[in-house]
Amino acid sequence: MILIRKQRAAFFAIVVACLAGLTFSTAALAEIDRGMILKESGVFGIVATFRLRADWDEMTPADRRGAAAEVVKTVAMHSGDVLVDAYLTRGLNANSDYFLRVHSYELTKGQDFMVDFRRTLIGRYSEVTETLVGVTKPLNYVTPEKSPELNKGLKSATYQGGMPRYAIVIPVQKNAAWWNMTAAERLAMAEGHTIPTLKHLVSVKRKLYHSTGLSGLDFITYFEMNDLTAFNNLVIALMSVPENLYHTRYGDPIILGTIHSVKDVFETLER
Amino acid sequence: MILIRKQRAAFFAIVVACLAGLTFSTAALAEIDRGMILKESGVFGIVATFRLRADWDEMTPADRRGAAAEVVKTVAMHSGDVLVDAYLTRGLNANSDYFLRVHSYELTKGQDFMVDFRRTLIGRYSEVTETLVGVTKPLNYVTPEKSPELNKGLKSATYQGGMPRYAIVIPVQKNAAWWNMTAAERLAMAEGHTIPTLKHLVSVKRKLYHSTGLSGLDFITYFEMNDLTAFNNLVIALMSVPENLYHTRYGDPIILGTIHSVKDVFETLER
Amino acid sequence: MILIRKQRAAFFAIVVACLAGLTFSTAALAEIDRGMILKESGVFGIVATFRLRADWDEMTPADRRGAAAEVVKTVAMHSGDVLVDAYLTRGLNANSDYFLRVHSYELTKGQDFMVDFRRTLIGRYSEVTETLVGVTKPLNYVTPEKSPELNKGLKSATYQGGMPRYAIVIPVQKNAAWWNMTAAERLAMAEGHTIPTLKHLVSVKRKLYHSTGLSGLDFITYFEMNDLTAFNNLVIALMSVPENLYHTRYGDPIILGTIHSVKDVFETLER
Amino acid sequence: MILIRKQRAAFFAIVVACLAGLTFSTAALAEIDRGMILKESGVFGIVATFRLRADWDEMTPADRRGAAAEVVKTVAMHSGDVLVDAYLTRGLNANSDYFLRVHSYELTKGQDFMVDFRRTLIGRYSEVTETLVGVTKPLNYVTPEKSPELNKGLKSATYQGGMPRYAIVIPVQKNAAWWNMTAAERLAMAEGHTIPTLKHLVSVKRKLYHSTGLSGLDFITYFEMNDLTAFNNLVIALMSVPENLYHTRYGDPIILGTIHSVKDVFETLER
Amino acid sequence: MILIRKQRAAFFAIVVACLAGLTFSTAALAEIDRGMILKESGVFGIVATFRLRADWDEMTPADRRGAAAEVVKTVAMHSGDVLVDAYLTRGLNANSDYFLRVHSYELTKGQDFMVDFRRTLIGRYSEVTETLVGVTKPLNYVTPEKSPELNKGLKSATYQGGMPRYAIVIPVQKNAAWWNMTAAERLAMAEGHTIPTLKHLVSVKRKLYHSTGLSGLDFITYFEMNDLTAFNNLVIALMSVPENLYHTRYGDPIILGTIHSVKDVFETLER
Repeated sequence: MILIRKQRAAFFAIVVACLAGLTFSTAALAEIDRGMILKESGVFGIVATFRLRADWDEMTPADRRGAAAEVVKTVAMHSGDVLVDAYLTRGLNANSDYFLRVHSYELTKGQDFMVDFRRTLIGRYSEVTETLVGVTKPLNYVTPEKSPELNKGLKSATYQGGMPRYAIVIPVQKNAAWWNMTAAERLAMAEGHTIPTLKHLVSVKRKLYHSTGLSGLDFITYFEMNDLTAFNNLVIALMSVPENLYHTRYGDPIILGTIHSVKDVFETLER
Repeated sequence: MILIRKQRAAFFAIVVACLAGLTFSTAALAEIDRGMILKESGVFGIVATFRLRADWDEMTPADRRGAAAEVVKTVAMHSGDVLVDAYLTRGLNANSDYFLRVHSYELTKGQDFMVDFRRTLIGRYSEVTETLVGVTKPLNYVTPEKSPELNKGLKSATYQGGMPRYAIVIPVQKNAAWWNMTAAERLAMAEGHTIPTLKHLVSVKRKLYHSTGLSGLDFITYFEMNDLTAFNNLVIALMSVPENLYHTRYGDPIILGTIHSVKDVFETLER
Repeated sequence: MILIRKQRAAFFAIVVACLAGLTFSTAALAEIDRGMILKESGVFGIVATFRLRADWDEMTPADRRGAAAEVVKTVAMHSGDVLVDAYLTRGLNANSDYFLRVHSYELTKGQDFMVDFRRTLIGRYSEVTETLVGVTKPLNYVTPEKSPELNKGLKSATYQGGMPRYAIVIPVQKNAAWWNMTAAERLAMAEGHTIPTLKHLVSVKRKLYHSTGLSGLDFITYFEMNDLTAFNNLVIALMSVPENLYHTRYGDPIILGTIHSVKDVFETLER
Repeated sequence: MILIRKQRAAFFAIVVACLAGLTFSTAALAEIDRGMILKESGVFGIVATFRLRADWDEMTPADRRGAAAEVVKTVAMHSGDVLVDAYLTRGLNANSDYFLRVHSYELTKGQDFMVDFRRTLIGRYSEVTETLVGVTKPLNYVTPEKSPELNKGLKSATYQGGMPRYAIVIPVQKNAAWWNMTAAERLAMAEGHTIPTLKHLVSVKRKLYHSTGLSGLDFITYFEMNDLTAFNNLVIALMSVPENLYHTRYGDPIILGTIHSVKDVFETLER
Repeated sequence: MILIRKQRAAFFAIVVACLAGLTFSTAALAEIDRGMILKESGVFGIVATFRLRADWDEMTPADRRGAAAEVVKTVAMHSGDVLVDAYLTRGLNANSDYFLRVHSYELTKGQDFMVDFRRTLIGRYSEVTETLVGVTKPLNYVTPEKSPELNKGLKSATYQGGMPRYAIVIPVQKNAAWWNMTAAERLAMAEGHTIPTLKHLVSVKRKLYHSTGLSGLDFITYFEMNDLTAFNNLVIALMSVPENLYHTRYGDPIILGTIHSVKDVFETLER
């Protein structure tokens, strides 16, 4: 399935490149399918936080004009290869003003976009403060085979909190004792954290990336929600199970942003 | 109750916007009620510390003129949505010159204010050095039901130290062992820290925000006082109970500031 | 006693302000009594380390001229409210070029001085790298009542090392296990560290500030000496007793400076 | 063998220097043999990560023109003494934009190159963010003598993943308990990590440098691969064996880059 | 002995000052005797690492001309009071470009030199990244009395590695458990680390400074060598004895530099 879609994208890219005489390897007509890329395994996610440098603030608004449009255009140029989401963190985090979440089927494509983004005006005045890289993988513990009942519970727990306004990223690292447990022991732990959190999934959406060996953490956990108190209760539930005794990192940083279109995030920062 | 007040504020905002042709979504006539927002649950608190950049000091006083007035005006513009308190930390903390405490019923409103504050002259010359986000929740442990006698003690302990001049913020993080205790065990611990501290509440005011999952800590504890030696004794009492064996973070940073009006804090830094 | 002295200072300040039409709240004729403020309880100490910014070094000597005199004048202006000592750390510490130790009966007065110091030329070109705040309290463990013999020992141990040229500040933080011990257990520990260090007090002077809840540490220990090898031996003795097993922080940073007049420290840095 | 090759290089260098009147001690005709230096013991490896400074981004493209060519020329000038590989990390790591891996038979030669690289335009606008130094040594644990079967397994495990596009560097530090085990115990641990990882070597290439005493770590582990999910599984396997209980550092940072020629890396950053 | 030499130096200084009308307290004719000061007890050592600031690299070579000569002159001016060694670390360490090792009989003299060095052109463009201060003391554990045989071994182990090209500084800090052991236990540990390292002393020179209470570490261990693989083996031997279980810091940073004259280090950085 992935191959077919990617071949098609490549085909269009070649056609377009021929017609227009373009040499951008990133030009493509077929946009990545958001619904698919967010569900599939083997997809790379880059979460990068940025802080605007002091001299951005000292520029005149006139000098900053067009910065957002340039980012929008850059995102569009790469839309056949990467899916880009943007979040405003200014005021809610000390270390960043915004963050990007970039999905791609090849990590090199994600890097290509990041390199071009850093060439935009606002990219040039942004300092990278955190970069997390992960890959999606099939469900590991609470599968239909290993834990049928809980798996059903997970499947039937659907988000009903309305269009989410907030996104929170929590990097997670397990200790050596965790990894040295048997698969059965880890499954029991995973079940142990699933049971008390099931009820919270009505108000929190979540997505998992595997990072061991790719970044200095094991998992990137990404959440969306409207109700932050419900999320606070969910994380307390996650803290209150034995699995938490095996964490060496839970957060550090916790990245809290509001969800907007790419255009809106950068227009807010351009003004 | 919250809804009614917010609907009223929205109504006034619309009326005013129509009359004046304003397009600020933050304009509102009805100011947030300080007495209420500081008591209610479900209120968001942002505590953000700022350090003035070197080039602020190198500006001429003439260039800085009006900076404080601009902040006061920005606070006023958002007064229907957020309550803003300011504190001077210069000379008492290495990492900041001042800090803001911002309350709102929606965290997005707190962010809106922060974004606008960063657009003021002094905001543009300020580096954010710490941002803590929390939410108020109903009393958890020492409630009338779970611990009636101590609850009475807490209620009857009223601050008698005069208009407080100092505010201290201490971020608190519990370890996994704490969260894995039973509710009864945690209640016993909470009672254990309440008993020896009751007597100090005559000279210290306090407020609690829950942060688990929102920032890299579990609680923001905020205190006001005149008598810093009394506060030192209070914290020693908090250190001397078993609950303290479950802390992974108590401070780091401890933020110590003097309490002033927004106008006074920024006029001091403008001069 | 404190009240009388402070009332007198306030009286003079008012008289002077009336005569001269001054509005400085810090103006005062009666200087703080060094001998008294260094002995009394309830006195606030601020220890702040500073690093000169790169652009200070790049200024011409002509541009820096007068910087020391301005600091001396600022110190004099506040001499009714604060006692200021200065130390040169350049060359002996990576994180600072000098440090200030500021004593006051009200911490707000210490802050007032610090705010004014930061407005001087050299203050504007200095980055604050550490700020420790503490308060003096009566002797806690080795008192005449609790430990009469050792108390006598402490009293009879008088410094005989000549005018000290070096000052060393060591921040100290105890762990939760320490604070959860009984008072008797902590007294035994305190006696345990007093016995092997008594003999070193002939070559080292010391002063203690309590910081729990005011800064991110429990004690600021301040020492003066001429003989640094003797001090090295003293600290090894302090490391070699059980109390040291309860430290989470001992130093970090250790601040080592040479003792000079305010004038000399800043003239060295102005040249 | 090393001596012969180096004498030959020196001989050519002298001839060339005489003919051309050059005084560069680094000039040499005979390039280092990539195949040999990457296999031999006693070879020094420097892994250095660099972040471009803000003012690089603010330069006009015209001012940056030629930067890549200058690096290529510098590498060529030192090609008789050092082997230089370059990697693009921009977008995949927060702390760097690129990294260099430099091999030499004498560490002074590696330093000579680094000093000259820092004199190039892009070197002058680069901040060093990490430098790891190690030396290659003969196989220690899973040798033909100590562990004949596993050694055979290692030898027969050949990479079949195609021209690798990604390189990952993971610094490793063992704790004191590890080093205090007997050689037999450590051998058992090494065998324990070899068994579950053998099957992954078809998709991952690896190289080891010893760093104890030379940098603040014990081993620099360097990997190349195309399949990052396979690498994620390999590292999970390494985490899941008892040896991992003896690590004080595994990563921090993990450096993830894409593999390109020196020319391509710097042309990407020049544009 | 020390007194005599210092009195003589002071005498010459006075004579010279009278003749020339100089007022430099640091002027002295008699240079410090390298052979003696490197052997005696009670000598202060400052190890300071420096990183050149970005604007140094952006200066034109013409603007930097003379920088090395100025340092050489400054060192000469202080040569009656301090012995200065310089090392090039650029390319081998992330946090520094060079480091200085300064010996003096009075720490104030070392500081005087450092203050003057920071006034030179290159000193003004250097950021201090680490400063370690220690003092030499007589041998403590493996003395002729306490451990006669090993002491003989130490004395007969002479360096035979040729003029050393590399210097490595490793800061060491012991934990509270170490300092709470009896002297006999610590002696056994010291013997335990001496035995397996004796054989390496043929290729490594070493020197020890005591730092407890003066800097945030207990010992500065300084090594010189040509053979870095031999040094790697030596440190592995030091890691593999029980004493290592009592270290809280071993390195962090490990400072690795090449040995050159002061003139050569600064000429390399001036070019």
